[in-house]
Formats: sequence, structure tokens, C-alpha cells
Amino acid sequence: MLRSTTSGDRYELLSPTALPKAGGFLWNQKMMIQMTCRGYAVSQFMQPEPAKYAYAPNLEAKTFMQPEQNYYAHHPGRFVYIKDEETGQLFSAPYEPVRAPVDRFVFSVGKSDISWTVEYIGIKVEMTFHIPTHDVAELWSINVTNISGRDRKISVYPYFPFGYMSWMNQEAEWNEKVIGVVGSYKTPYQKASDYPKTKFLKDKTYFLCETPPISWEAKQEAFEGEGGLHNPSSLQKEELSKSDARYETPTAIVQYRESLKKDEQREYRFLFGPAFDEAEILDMRKKYLSKEAFSKAAEDYQKYIELGSGCLRIETPDPVLDNFVNHWLARQVYYHGDVNRLTTDPQTRNYLQDNMGMSFIKPVVARNAILTAIGQQEKNGSMPDGILLAEGAELKYINQIPHTDHCVWLPVALEIYLAETGDYALLDEKVTSMHGDTYTVFERFSRAMDWLLSARDHRGLSFIEQGDWCDPMNMVGPKGIGVSGWLTVATAYACNLWATVCEQQGEADTAARFRAGATEVNARATEHFWDGAWFARGITDAGVTFGTQHDAEGRIWLNPQAWSILGGAATPDKIATMLPHVDAQLSTPYGPVMFAPPFTAMREDVGRVTQKYPGQGENGSVYNHAGAFYVWALYSIHDADRAFTVLRQMIPGPDEADYVQRGQLPVYIPNYYRGGWQAYPRTAGRSSQLFNTGTVSWVYRALVEGLCGLRGDKEGLRVEPQLPKEWPGMKVTRLFRGATFEVEVKRGEVDEVKVVVDGVQLGEPRIRGVEEGKVYRVEVVVPQ
Amino acid sequence: MLRSTTSGDRYELLSPTALPKAGGFLWNQKMMIQMTCRGYAVSQFMQPEPAKYAYAPNLEAKTFMQPEQNYYAHHPGRFVYIKDEETGQLFSAPYEPVRAPVDRFVFSVGKSDISWTVEYIGIKVEMTFHIPTHDVAELWSINVTNISGRDRKISVYPYFPFGYMSWMNQEAEWNEKVIGVVGSYKTPYQKASDYPKTKFLKDKTYFLCETPPISWEAKQEAFEGEGGLHNPSSLQKEELSKSDARYETPTAIVQYRESLKKDEQREYRFLFGPAFDEAEILDMRKKYLSKEAFSKAAEDYQKYIELGSGCLRIETPDPVLDNFVNHWLARQVYYHGDVNRLTTDPQTRNYLQDNMGMSFIKPVVARNAILTAIGQQEKNGSMPDGILLAEGAELKYINQIPHTDHCVWLPVALEIYLAETGDYALLDEKVTSMHGDTYTVFERFSRAMDWLLSARDHRGLSFIEQGDWCDPMNMVGPKGIGVSGWLTVATAYACNLWATVCEQQGEADTAARFRAGATEVNARATEHFWDGAWFARGITDAGVTFGTQHDAEGRIWLNPQAWSILGGAATPDKIATMLPHVDAQLSTPYGPVMFAPPFTAMREDVGRVTQKYPGQGENGSVYNHAGAFYVWALYSIHDADRAFTVLRQMIPGPDEADYVQRGQLPVYIPNYYRGGWQAYPRTAGRSSQLFNTGTVSWVYRALVEGLCGLRGDKEGLRVEPQLPKEWPGMKVTRLFRGATFEVEVKRGEVDEVKVVVDGVQLGEPRIRGVEEGKVYRVEVVVPQ
Repeated sequence: MLRSTTSGDRYELLSPTALPKAGGFLWNQKMMIQMTCRGYAVSQFMQPEPAKYAYAPNLEAKTFMQPEQNYYAHHPGRFVYIKDEETGQLFSAPYEPVRAPVDRFVFSVGKSDISWTVEYIGIKVEMTFHIPTHDVAELWSINVTNISGRDRKISVYPYFPFGYMSWMNQEAEWNEKVIGVVGSYKTPYQKASDYPKTKFLKDKTYFLCETPPISWEAKQEAFEGEGGLHNPSSLQKEELSKSDARYETPTAIVQYRESLKKDEQREYRFLFGPAFDEAEILDMRKKYLSKEAFSKAAEDYQKYIELGSGCLRIETPDPVLDNFVNHWLARQVYYHGDVNRLTTDPQTRNYLQDNMGMSFIKPVVARNAILTAIGQQEKNGSMPDGILLAEGAELKYINQIPHTDHCVWLPVALEIYLAETGDYALLDEKVTSMHGDTYTVFERFSRAMDWLLSARDHRGLSFIEQGDWCDPMNMVGPKGIGVSGWLTVATAYACNLWATVCEQQGEADTAARFRAGATEVNARATEHFWDGAWFARGITDAGVTFGTQHDAEGRIWLNPQAWSILGGAATPDKIATMLPHVDAQLSTPYGPVMFAPPFTAMREDVGRVTQKYPGQGENGSVYNHAGAFYVWALYSIHDADRAFTVLRQMIPGPDEADYVQRGQLPVYIPNYYRGGWQAYPRTAGRSSQLFNTGTVSWVYRALVEGLCGLRGDKEGLRVEPQLPKEWPGMKVTRLFRGATFEVEVKRGEVDEVKVVVDGVQLGEPRIRGVEEGKVYRVEVVVPQ
Repeated sequence: MLRSTTSGDRYELLSPTALPKAGGFLWNQKMMIQMTCRGYAVSQFMQPEPAKYAYAPNLEAKTFMQPEQNYYAHHPGRFVYIKDEETGQLFSAPYEPVRAPVDRFVFSVGKSDISWTVEYIGIKVEMTFHIPTHDVAELWSINVTNISGRDRKISVYPYFPFGYMSWMNQEAEWNEKVIGVVGSYKTPYQKASDYPKTKFLKDKTYFLCETPPISWEAKQEAFEGEGGLHNPSSLQKEELSKSDARYETPTAIVQYRESLKKDEQREYRFLFGPAFDEAEILDMRKKYLSKEAFSKAAEDYQKYIELGSGCLRIETPDPVLDNFVNHWLARQVYYHGDVNRLTTDPQTRNYLQDNMGMSFIKPVVARNAILTAIGQQEKNGSMPDGILLAEGAELKYINQIPHTDHCVWLPVALEIYLAETGDYALLDEKVTSMHGDTYTVFERFSRAMDWLLSARDHRGLSFIEQGDWCDPMNMVGPKGIGVSGWLTVATAYACNLWATVCEQQGEADTAARFRAGATEVNARATEHFWDGAWFARGITDAGVTFGTQHDAEGRIWLNPQAWSILGGAATPDKIATMLPHVDAQLSTPYGPVMFAPPFTAMREDVGRVTQKYPGQGENGSVYNHAGAFYVWALYSIHDADRAFTVLRQMIPGPDEADYVQRGQLPVYIPNYYRGGWQAYPRTAGRSSQLFNTGTVSWVYRALVEGLCGLRGDKEGLRVEPQLPKEWPGMKVTRLFRGATFEVEVKRGEVDEVKVVVDGVQLGEPRIRGVEEGKVYRVEVVVPQ
């Protein structure tokens, strides 16, 4: 039902009903589109705020990208109806809206295109979809072949619904000049002062045909008639009615009538997207709507995607892992660093983590992101809740709620960037902030750490205010009293990371200050949060410690355990005590849940996290971001087996029972899999289908620096693979500072790691003096 | 296809496809629901802001009630599937989602209930729907009768989709205790401080069955399967799967399997609505879910609706008019005054006009509204953009945009209230405003008029800022320079109205001051806005006069003409000049358009009005509110024929071509009919389907005080009918100050109106000393 190509760069789903929500996604810096196997689409583009060119059938709320998208008959999508002109029989590709029991179905997701092959009543329809690299548009090729062994007469009807463009002003009509259907509206505004912002928005949607059709419709109602989407009345007639939409729901359907001899094929191309005016539509047509231009755009886009291939290729005893790492994971990291989730005000922690992954792909992007973020540091050293990326952008939604953790992510992101690049010069850059003050990056980081150390209560515990990280428990500390167990141990981690950088920079006094700070924070954390078996999650405004053995719900949380390991609060004896509890209480076949048991009702001293459905989102799901922190923490203490077990659970498929339960293709890690394993076994494990997640930078790091153990430092590349115990070895290709390391890891009769580079054994497992452009052959022997 | 019952209190539509969007509406003070003939529904309730209990299939934007609602397969609705258990044949009542070609269809809209009769494959389904008077709930009776003449086995499946309740937290399950499906979610909030506002919201939706069904489903996906809404997979099985929804789209479908002998009937009752918790659901069940309780609720609700029957019954040569006036119009006026369009911050002009109509129905409501509004007067005498009706309410959307016309509506509303009640004591009431200052109503009105006179430029013309009335041309005067032609002549009207009240109160000096003000304003208006043939609409910030003969679009506007007649700027010679232009340029078969020609593109010195689709909403449509002003202006100059022609055009149906083009039932006047008569004849005349409109108070007034000429004054009831020239006479029953006037109007050989009351001829056409409870027989003779 699901198969990978032999090269591993595509996944093919062979049934439209097995994983109905499964899909793939494409993006460039201006747009993003997620297509499901059945033909539904979610797409947006930036101008500069997120906008649409294909709409729902009603006035939809503007919101961030939703997890577990709901689909329904009139959901936006891209379809082709085929009618047998001799029998009147109808089907649609890829599957919706007719839902015919097709003879053959292949949904094929590649890295830079998405395609389908559908066969029914002797007709083969091949749909291929890609996007250009620098423009907002969809490029659709549709090939129709007569495979029935006899001559056929058919009509081919591409159907690209525009939806409810606006309640104020919408229309659509056939435009002879552009050869296509053009829908128009005006973005509504209320205040006169908003008009200049909306005036130049791309308020037109076009559907262009390379070759003129024989008929068309632009009015949804006329298209459907009383037949409905599964059997539109207009398709029962010889030709479409050429209706226009005048303040009626716009759509685009065109008709080609074909006589196909045995094995004969027709090839069509269409362009779909937004535009400001007719001139822009004509430009887009000229630029893209031809066979040659489609090929060129596909080639360019493939090159653009290849730029995000990352720094790691592996060959291990686990081909599923190899395939995911070698083809898909870096792509998802690249997506995050390339487009910042298509928002103009990413949350600071997301922005830093999404970009830290780019250290492995395009380090200059990570560098610029650190500079951009620190350039928005507040005067008191704290970091704002969101980072503004476009002129005129504003902090919206959740970014208006005070969270206290943003400074933590600075040294976390920096550590990865420095390890990968050795670019310590970054620290000397002078940055004048948006508030007008000027400091070096080094000074700004110290100020951020000072702020973190200062934002603690009389007991030395970190205030939480209305939230930290992505589990915004917004009623723990709104009075300014409540504290966070996680943030306290994370503060120690951040201070330790920064102290290490200070040491590397020869700033011994500063280093000592932050090292002492971390030690002190850890002592306070242990005193107040260690409940005897694990670290608690926090203490509320009312003084209630939660995330402890006394709680029936939200009893044990993953983050305080993972980060107390990273930050040092968890001493070896405490680690030995806590990990079996994590195993016993948080493990599921799809990874560890963020906490357990999930909340089933509002807990008013904890707040918003408990608003989510039990096992969904932040409420006790397998929130992969937290799982990824945990994996890194386990590698940091060389618990290679536990780390690999958790890491592997996060990767979807391709075992059938597994991907059916998750319900997605193994081409990305979603932000969560449902938890609630005990209470809701039917739905536990189900993918959110949302590929926006801070998870992937951490997973990529865990693979590069943990599993493969190929981590940079100031002088070179350290070599310390952490194979799971079943593995006899593995092969790794690692790109690092412009050089290529061909690494072969084997087990052998050694007490510690032995490294041979180009035939020469090293005194310690560290390759110094890396030369750009050079290919190193590295043999690594690790203990049995 | 459309017919009225002989008593005129119901309209029946005999085809589900003729007027697919046509429907009726029910309301009480807590909820409102509009049902289409095909089974789709738009409903909302107050807690205190508008909320829903049945949702769209996606995350819908929160917005005011939309005109020209768009429907699609998964739009919220109320349906019953019927399956023939012997043949598997399926249909649904009323029509959606199966859309079977039913043998008989009757959609019947009453004043206090809505019902359907649908027959197909020998089964009759009768659906009847009403709501209670004081609670939020839908009471559904469904009767199924075997009319096939032989024994039948069928399944009956009421299907009440809940929709996408929330992306954060939604589930539904069968609840044995309440005997129904209960869906639950939590209203999302971001800031901790918002939680107390959302905590007690009714976040549950229930669908309760009087008698337990044999099976049920609570998960939309399980219900539809691959079959789709028109042929759900689950209905092809013997029983529903009893699936629950766990963070999946909730729904409610239940199954009754019946063996019906020839002519046998089954009767079912269901309750659908929102609740806070299970206890409330059980209470509602106990209170309403029985045959007796349904009857009692229907009876109570009918009495409640009868309270809004108004003060006028007519018997004229025009039975369509009679029917509309005697049964429907007062009901729509009542709706507006009773619920204020279900908003907590109605626009001030809407609030005053919606309530002024209540002077004819429940005068105390109008009185209280005047006091409420004036109690929110600003310290400088101006009126705010919206009136806050609930604790914690805020001015939202358009009410944050400065408009300059709100003071005008005070004397307009007062005039009607005083004429109807003679309650001049209102003027002596002391009102302490929300800003803390205390004045009498009289003083406050004078202050409002002073503010109007002050808010004018050096030429004496009224500033427009970002808009006036309901054609918010928000770029005419945002710099504080642009002026409004309409508001200038309306200011004169308001000052004249107020001066008259001052005279009646013996405040001669004040009266003289405002009378002089009006005269001066009118002189300035004439000087700057009279373009030789009509009054212009305004002058922009840049000094461009618009709405004149020089404009290709927006050339002539109805409001400046109507209000210059009312306010006195239009002298008889000017009236004689302007009216033929109004006739020639603004008339359509569905009433006069607000302006013509409509704008086809943005005119940047005019603004937002040009955002609407040409001929839609405010952009040159038959905006009935403006038409109603015009009608009143025409009656004020005794142009009885022109007035009646326009008035009559605004009333929908029941001539077939007419109601098909308008697309609505003749049970209310919509806020607009589409204009664009020249450019878009296909859609011109189409109803907005929106029954929220300031129109109806004015139309009712035009009927009572204009056509019937039965208008109160300080001492009694003036009698001055204005029959259209074709009419030989009419009969009128008029309720006035507690008395009943049985009036018969005839034409006769008289020079002026002669009035005989209970056999005694009056010296002047004015009945003084009205006695409460008394029935007056009035014979009126008007000139031939």
C-alpha cells in the first residue's frame, strides 16, 4: 500500500482511502502548499503576511497552520474530472470529488514534485505538480492516455475551485487574453489608514490553460447544479455553460473534448496562482506556461531543494532510517530555516531553533538569524516573545503573551552554530538593537544570561509568568509568583553552555560567574523540584508544586527530566532513578509523551495546556519536540540504546500497522503524534499532519552529533559514534567545514574509540586542521 | 411554486430548487436562526457575545451576519435521511444532502414556526421546527407516515451535524443519561486574563432524542465514509457504528428502524442546542422534550410573537401589500427592536432606528432605547459610534471608525416616539451619562444639535471624517477637511425636528436658535451642493465635489435628494427639478438604487463604499434603507403616487418572475436587492437574504403615517391618508394610545379630507382626547 522507490527519494501510496489525510508538501521562500493524496490542498503565500489564492467555501478564520486538518467535500483542492462521452461515466483524479473505485492509484511524493497516476474505465490520468523557485504559482501537468485498447471519446475537465474569495467583492470570468479563468476581489479593510496596506495585495486568482478549452465555467453554483460535486449537473451536458460569477462563488472548470485512439495521449499544462493585475498574469503565463518552461522550472526547483540536502548520508543496518535521513529529514530542516514557517513574527524560541538546524545546511542563515534575534533584545537583556521579520510586522496571537524562556535558546542555538562552523568571530560583531543600544554579540549573550539568572524568585527558581517553551501553562505564574521547574534547570543548561563559550574565548571570569550561577540554580532546582523520583514541572502562584508523584494527571513531565540531565541538576544517581520512571510512564510505540497522564479537565492553577484534547497537541501527546530534547539528553550521557529507541519511534513508517495508525507518509516528522495511549487507543499515535516543528533541528543534531558522533569544536571534528547495541557498524558521509569525511564505523576489540584517517591512526578521536575541499577516509573502531 | 395560506400567515414554497437560498427565520431575545428551504441553517445565540452551537466544517471567521450567504454540502443544517430497508433506496428531508427528486415538497414558513412536508417512495416526512421563548434550543418534531398503501420497513436517521467545534478540543459521544449525542469543546483563549470570560461559556452541543434510537454515530468521518454526504457509507449498513469522536469532527446521527403498516405514522421529537454541562442538558430535556412541553412552548412562543403584531391592519385593493403589512412587516420591526440584531454594541444609528420602530409596537422599548443611547452621549454633546448593551461589551469593527452622523438620529427617533405616545415627560428625565455628567433629556438633545451645528467647516458644511450613515465613504474626509452633502442637509432636518419639539415645549428661544441654524445650514448646502439638477453627495479632503453630473460613476445619490426634501434645502422648484432625475437614473423594478452608476473600481478619494461588488451592498444596490427614507420624504411632500410606487417595489413577491429574480420568500424586506441593472441584468434584483436592516422602521412608519396618514401629535391623532391614485379607498385598523380606530377611507367630492368619527363630523382632520380602550369608527373622505 505504501512503498519507497529504490532510490528512496519518493514515497508512493497505492490507495486513496488507506491514509486519507496523508500528503506531501512543497515550498519556496514565498509560498507553501500541502497536498493530500485525495487532491485536497492547503496553501498560502506571503505578501508579506500569509495570504491565500484558493479559499474555503465560507469565510474562514485567519489562523496559523492547523494540526489535524479537517477535510470536507468543498475543501480547496485540485481535481480533474474525466467523462466517457459514449457512456456518460464519470470519475475524477486523483480521487475526490467523485471517489470512484479506481483500478489503479499511485500518489507519489518526491522532494521537489508531487504526482499521481490514476486509472479507471480504460483511461490513465497522470497529474504532476511542482512550483517555481522564486514565484508564487502552481505548475500542473496533466496527461491523459487511452489504455483501453480501443478508440475513445472523452472529456477532460480540470476543476480548480477558487472558493469564497470575499464577502465584499468577488467575481470571476473567462479572460480570452490570458486564456484562463480569472477571479477577482478586494481585500476588505475598515479604517481608511489600512487601505494603503491592502491596495497592492494580489487580489486576483488565475487558472491559465496552455491550450484553449472548448468550454468553461467560472461560477461554482452553475458548475455543481443539483448534481453536487460528486456528479455535477454541468458535466452531464455536452458543454459547460460559460457562466461568469458576479458576486457569486468563483471557480475554474474547463473542458477539453478528445477523441483518443488506442494508446493515444494528450498533454495539458495549467498555471494556478495569485496576481495583482492582468499584466502580472500575462507575465506569469509567458514565463512559465510551456513545456520548456515547466521543465526549466522543475530543474531549477530541484536544484534549489538540493541546496538543502544537509551534511549527512548514512548507511546503517536500518534502511528505513537511512532513507528518512538521507532524503527527507534535512529537507524538513531546510524548510524551517528557509521560510520560518511563513510567518512575519515567529516566536523567538521557534526562530532560533528553526535556524539552528541551518547550521548543518546553510550556516550563514543560522548566523544571520542569531544576529537578527539578538538585535531585538530588550534593554534589560531579556528577549521579546517574537522576532519581527518584515517591515511593519507586529507581534500577534501567542507572541503577546509573556513567556520567560526565550533567552535560553540563544546559547543553545549558538552552541550548534559554533560547533559546525568554528566561527567565533560572530561573538565580536557589534549589534545596535532596534531599541538603539549597541553591544557586541558576546556582551548581548552575557546580558541575556544575566537576565535569566535575575528572573528568579527568592528561592532561586525561574519565574514562569504566562508560559515557557511550547507548553504554555498560562495560569501557573500570571501573578508573578509561580515558577517553572523546566526553566530553572534550563537556565542552568544555558548558563553552562555560555560559560563554555566564555572559556573558549578566554573570558575566565565571566565563565566562572555563569558556571557558579548554573551550579547555584541546579542546587535550588534540586532542593525544590526533586520529588524523590523525578523533577517536578513547577510551582504555581498559590505555592502548589505540580508534576509530582502526588498528581493524578500531569504527574511526570519529560522536559524537566531531559533538561536536568543537560543542565547538570540530575546527578548520575538521580538519572538512574528517574529514567525507569520515564520509561514506565511516558513511553509509547510512537515515542515518549510530553507528560502523563494527560489532563482530562481544566486544572485552573495550570491553565492553557489543559485546554487541548487529552493526548493532543500540548496535552500529553507524543510532542516530538520534547522527545527530541530527550534524545539529545540521552546521547549527552552516552545512553546510546535508549536514545536510539526514542529517536527511531519518532520516525513514521514504513511498517504497515505503524503508518496506518499514524496516518501519514514517512516524509517528515510531524509536530505530534497523539498520546492518550491508555484512554484512547483507537487514536493514539495519529499524526498531526503538521510539519512545522522545532523537532527536526534537534533530531538532525542527534543524528549528526549523537548517533554518528561527528561533532565539531573550535579546532576540528570530534569522532565519537554511539551505535545502538545491535549494530555491528555503519557508514557515514559527513560534510564539515567544506571537507568531506567518508567514515566507516566498526566494532572491534578496543577499550575506547580508535580513529584512523587516511591510513593514519590519531592519538585522540579528533580530526584537526580540516582542509576545505578535501575528502577524508575515516575508519572508526568502537568498543564491542 | 410559491403560495400564501388563505389566512396569509404562512408562505409555502413547493420546490426545493426554485429559490434555493430562500428561508425563514425565528428568534427570541437569546437566539436567532435562519433556515433555508433545503435544510441549511445559520444560527447564533448570545452569551453575551454571539456564539454558535452548530459549526461550519472548518474554522470559520467570527463576523457579523453575512448577506447573500453561501451554502455548500457541509454547511450546517438539520436533516433526516430515510432508507427503505427492503430496497436500500435513500432520500433526505427536507432536500439536502441527498437531493432526491422528491414527489412532493412543501416548505412552509409561519410567524412562529417553520415546517416541511416531503414525500418520496411512498413515505411522507413532516418536519416542524420552533424555538422556546426564553431559552436557547431548537424543538424539532419529525413525523414519518407510510403513504405507500402497503406495509413498509424503513430506517429514519435524523442527522444534525455539529461541525468543527474547535481545533483545540472537540469530542462527542452518546450519553445514555441524557439520551442523546453530546459534543464538547473548550473555547480557546490566549491570555490568562481571558479565561474567566470563557470559563462559563456553553461549550457543549446536545442532540436529544425523546425515544432512544437503535444506533447512533457521533463522528462525522465514520458517518460519511467513502460514500459522502449524499450517500453515506454508514447508511448502507444495518446499523450505525456507534462511533465516538475524539478530537475528530463531532456530529449527531441516530437511527430508528420501523415497520410501518399502511398509513401508519411515527412521531419523533428532538432537542438541539448549547449547554454548559450535563445538568443543564438534563434540565432542558425535562423542561422541553415531550409532546406536552412542545405544545406548551409553541403556544408560548406564538403569544410572544403576537406581542409584536404592531398597530396597523389594512384592507386595500392590493392583497399582497395587505398580507405583507398585516402579517410580516411588524414582525420584522419587532425582531429589530427586540434583539438589536444580536449584538452587544449596535451602531448608534442602527440602535436608534431599530428601536424607533418599537414606538408602534412596544413604545416603552423605544423610550428605554432613547434613554440608553443618550446616556452614552459624549461630554462634548456628540454621540459615540456604537451603544454598549452588555456589561463588558466593547465597540468593535466598524464602531471603531469615526462617523459623524450619529446625533442626527436622536430627533428622528424621538419624533416618531412622541407622535405615537405623546410622552413629552421623557424630555424632563435627568440622565447621568456613563461619563458622569447629568442633564435632562431635553438638554442632552439640545447639546447634540449644538454639536451637529458645530461640526461644520468654514463654509458651513458638515464634516464627514471616515463616514456617515451606512455608506461609509471612508476616504472622503479622513484628514478632517472633507464634508458630506447628505449630512449637511440631514443636520438641517434634525435641527428642524428638534426646533419643533422645542416649540411644543414652549422653549421659543431654543426653537428659534435651531430653526435659524437649519435655515443657515440649508443655505450653505444649496450654495455648495446643488449642481443645477440635484444635490451632490460631498466634497473630498482634496476639494473634489462628487455625486454630480460630472461623474461617470456615483453620479447621483438618493440620500441627499431625500433628505434635502425632508430638511428643507430642496425648495419646491428644486424638488421638481430633481425628481425626474431620480426617476430616470435610480429607478429599477425592485426599488431605487442608492446611487448610480455603481463604482466598478476603487475611487481613492471616496473609499470603502467602492469596495463592494457593483450593485451589491452599499455600492449602488437597491439599498432599501435609503429607499425607505425616500418614501418618507415623498409622503412628506404629499407625492403619494411616487411614494407608493417605490414602497411597493421594496416588497418581495409574490409574482413569480419577481420572487424568482429576488430569490426570497415575501416574509421580510432584505437589506438590499442587487443593483447594477444595466451591467448585470442576470443578478440585478437578487435579495441579500439578510433581514437585519434599518429599512423596516421607516417602511412601517411610511405605511402608518404616510399611506394611512394616521399620525399622532401632542393632542391626538391626525387623519390624512395619501392613497395612490388608482385606489378608490381602503380600510384600516389602527391601534393608538390604547384605543382602536376602525377607519374606512373613501374618495368623494371633497376639496380636503373630511373625517367623521362615530357619526360626528370633525372640524379638522384630527381626533382629540383619545380614550384608552375605546373603539372609534372613523369614516374618511378624501378628494377624488
